Amino acid sequence: MIKKIHHIGIAVKNMDETVKLYTKMLGAKPISFFEIPGAKVKIANFKVGETALEFLEGPAGSSMADFITAKGEGLHHIAVEVDDIAAELKKLAAAGVTLKDKEPKPGPEGKIAFVGPEGAHGVTIELVQPNKKGK
Amino acid sequence: MIKKIHHIGIAVKNMDETVKLYTKMLGAKPISFFEIPGAKVKIANFKVGETALEFLEGPAGSSMADFITAKGEGLHHIAVEVDDIAAELKKLAAAGVTLKDKEPKPGPEGKIAFVGPEGAHGVTIELVQPNKKGK
Repeated sequence: MIKKIHHIGIAVKNMDETVKLYTKMLGAKPISFFEIPGAKVKIANFKVGETALEFLEGPAGSSMADFITAKGEGLHHIAVEVDDIAAELKKLAAAGVTLKDKEPKPGPEGKIAFVGPEGAHGVTIELVQPNKKGK
Repeated sequence: MIKKIHHIGIAVKNMDETVKLYTKMLGAKPISFFEIPGAKVKIANFKVGETALEFLEGPAGSSMADFITAKGEGLHHIAVEVDDIAAELKKLAAAGVTLKDKEPKPGPEGKIAFVGPEGAHGVTIELVQPNKKGK
């Protein structure tokens, strides 16, 4: 079952400038920072209601830098929180959405999998099944 | 004050196919449909938690069709719900975000204004101040 929008992923060129601007706009600092060396990405999360804006910056050659080269800075993916990621992957595959990750993989806060944008009308969707504790 | 993500706007080519697919994926039908003749756009909203996915389709020559020509189908804007749209427009202008709408205008469910993507790191942001009743 899909429970809520977990976060909205946004590809940016300059994390420091972005964090300064959105801190001013949203009136609050990021709730978390992550660096995922394997994925070559720096992440800052701003809480907005029950969801979050997740800004992503990557070096030349990373998937984030490639996205920005192709489409410019901006909206990159929607992450939906689910209670059973394996069941949701099956449902999406049956609906004709291309699975980038056929199996869940570890994310910063639980299990994740990326699907689309093929078959999902141009939307890259991340499924997130958070770890139990604290959520 | 920003209260929550009101909806996430997604530009699509074929509303009927999109509605069929996301009804299957989300396990529920759209909560609302709108047509805004002046803006040449058809809209379908799916509720997800406290926010919504808003799919938008427009004919050739509309801003939605132009967006799809330039960037492809997919994520178009983030709408944030605010309690005082005039105050938020001032705050965004002061932060250096380009205002497409310098003054609020009527939307399907209240007052709205579009800002960015210039100055907002590629993100088009819609401010929504819903009408009082029922929200």
